[in-house]
Amino acid sequence: MKKKFKFINPLINTLKPYVPGEQSLDSSTLKLNTNENPFSPSPKVKEAIQKCLLKKATLLRLYPEPESDSLKKALAKYFKLRKNSIFIGNGSDEVLAFCFMSFFAGRGVLSMPDITYSFYPSLAKLFGVSVETFPLAHNFEIDLSQIPKASNSIVIPNPNAITGLMIDKKKLIKYVLNNPNKLFLIDEAYVDFGSYSCIPLIRDRICENLIVVQTFSKSRSLAGLRLGFCVGSEELISALTDAKNSFNSYPVDRLACSAGVAALGDREWFKSSREQIISNRSFLTEEFTRIGFRVIPSKGNFLLISHRKANAVNLFEYLMRKKVLVRYFKHGRLRNWLRISIGSLESCKKVLSLLKDKLC
Amino acid sequence: MKKKFKFINPLINTLKPYVPGEQSLDSSTLKLNTNENPFSPSPKVKEAIQKCLLKKATLLRLYPEPESDSLKKALAKYFKLRKNSIFIGNGSDEVLAFCFMSFFAGRGVLSMPDITYSFYPSLAKLFGVSVETFPLAHNFEIDLSQIPKASNSIVIPNPNAITGLMIDKKKLIKYVLNNPNKLFLIDEAYVDFGSYSCIPLIRDRICENLIVVQTFSKSRSLAGLRLGFCVGSEELISALTDAKNSFNSYPVDRLACSAGVAALGDREWFKSSREQIISNRSFLTEEFTRIGFRVIPSKGNFLLISHRKANAVNLFEYLMRKKVLVRYFKHGRLRNWLRISIGSLESCKKVLSLLKDKLC
Repeated sequence: MKKKFKFINPLINTLKPYVPGEQSLDSSTLKLNTNENPFSPSPKVKEAIQKCLLKKATLLRLYPEPESDSLKKALAKYFKLRKNSIFIGNGSDEVLAFCFMSFFAGRGVLSMPDITYSFYPSLAKLFGVSVETFPLAHNFEIDLSQIPKASNSIVIPNPNAITGLMIDKKKLIKYVLNNPNKLFLIDEAYVDFGSYSCIPLIRDRICENLIVVQTFSKSRSLAGLRLGFCVGSEELISALTDAKNSFNSYPVDRLACSAGVAALGDREWFKSSREQIISNRSFLTEEFTRIGFRVIPSKGNFLLISHRKANAVNLFEYLMRKKVLVRYFKHGRLRNWLRISIGSLESCKKVLSLLKDKLC
Repeated sequence: MKKKFKFINPLINTLKPYVPGEQSLDSSTLKLNTNENPFSPSPKVKEAIQKCLLKKATLLRLYPEPESDSLKKALAKYFKLRKNSIFIGNGSDEVLAFCFMSFFAGRGVLSMPDITYSFYPSLAKLFGVSVETFPLAHNFEIDLSQIPKASNSIVIPNPNAITGLMIDKKKLIKYVLNNPNKLFLIDEAYVDFGSYSCIPLIRDRICENLIVVQTFSKSRSLAGLRLGFCVGSEELISALTDAKNSFNSYPVDRLACSAGVAALGDREWFKSSREQIISNRSFLTEEFTRIGFRVIPSKGNFLLISHRKANAVNLFEYLMRKKVLVRYFKHGRLRNWLRISIGSLESCKKVLSLLKDKLC
């Protein structure tokens, strides 16, 4: 064994890579385990890709725009930002990777909540970042007063990736403003399902110690195309761009870039699909509560639930036998909880009915 | 300034990012500067993407296969390899990045030719890899005897990215076999235009100290879709996969993956387009020689040329004024040379005619 591994960077042999939710399933499985959007993306996305193929099929032979400028321009218009405060990547996971590489590595201690998106610790390990976690409150809320004084950087998902809870807006802004020497990365992957964005703090040049990350995978229904972005001061974005151009010059392909522009342009689709998800979330919250679940009040497209009498792992396995896939976390305080993505109304009713059969 | 940069990893402030060839041009410009394929990709690529959109538009909402398994399966069949000896990435630049991270970082000195793909030094800097270059011979060939004895790893593009020269097959294989303690990364981005691949050395388990990188950007005409891959022993591929899954779990999107499978399946398109490029290369080599150029005998889809009387920078600027973009390198031994991608026969004739006007 030793002989074979002699060619590998010793650090890489110590990694604990992120394990994403199960992806390859037969089409009869109801997939509510990775917080994907239940609706097809805007029809304008399909049109934009077809236009690329019909009018410019030959263009697939050419490299794409290195900095995805046309998508940057569309985002700048949408958020009323300057283009050089935007960075685009191959999914928000890649954007997070460049942030860990550019802002957290080599800069002391990074803090994050003890219950959060499990990809963050994998990234920290890869880039040799020292992590100090801080505990969530008893009700699972992020308690900013728990952030260690010694940390130089903090990653905060708002809403939090596992619980769905958002931080009170005034409290969060006050904390960021009161700590100008700490760099905050706010991961807003789920922001469009009922929370608020911190992008205006960057747009209005109120904070320079802030990076906001968003994705097209959730509220724009483009997980299959890999598009994410972040917003920050020109200096921070320039550092990310240098890191990217030393790693991979053209990370976003031509079709994904066009699809992103089209998705951003369809405000009607966006409004109606997220309203439907919020409405389905309310329906499920009420119904789950009625049959004895504790439900964390989520602002994401998912619910974290725990039953007062039934064991989470049994419910998880029961649902899997019924071809419904949800997420079950083995660790610590979450070991009796399930996370269920908000599907279409039909899917929500199906899960509910299965759980009622089991529990009532 | 200092205040603003305090949030940035000090290493990132020292990077010298790769600068790719100019990409955004009006459509009247003839683009022969980044070795793109002059032909549209296989029509089967377009069909595959349209099929994804028509039959499964809804699937764009779902994350793609984390390891691009369907493309891996197609590559395994094509090269008669096991699936676990293949790693797929978002362009071969990303594959190279993961190789530098997983095999070259933390493992001593990396050697590379002094004249080669200028992305390698950027990657080395990003991952803190010590580089020792070795000089090309006077005729620009890679002279393996020049590789420093102390190096632990060697990156060799074959054919070389700037010159187009390939290394004699027997010499290369003998050198790799005679140095089992050095890890070789052979970058075969241009292999399909007349060279030989070292993949059989991995397939037949002859070498464990070898990684071979290839791309869909050149001979498959899919630069716009970002697909690359490498082949190596199961242990090496497993290390790359761990690095990837700590950085970005789903780097290749659904449409690109289907396009790759379709491109690989169309052997007729592949055969005919590369034969045309090889034929155009012979035509240009002969004609350029006739009008006083020294032409390096290329096995890539490009030619490195230098005129006995005219200055390269003047020719570069003259062609640019005529809306033909080629690559000019400022540094050292290449400062009187131009690199010209092999276009369609019509494009080749246009460049030739412009240069004849200027020189004859």
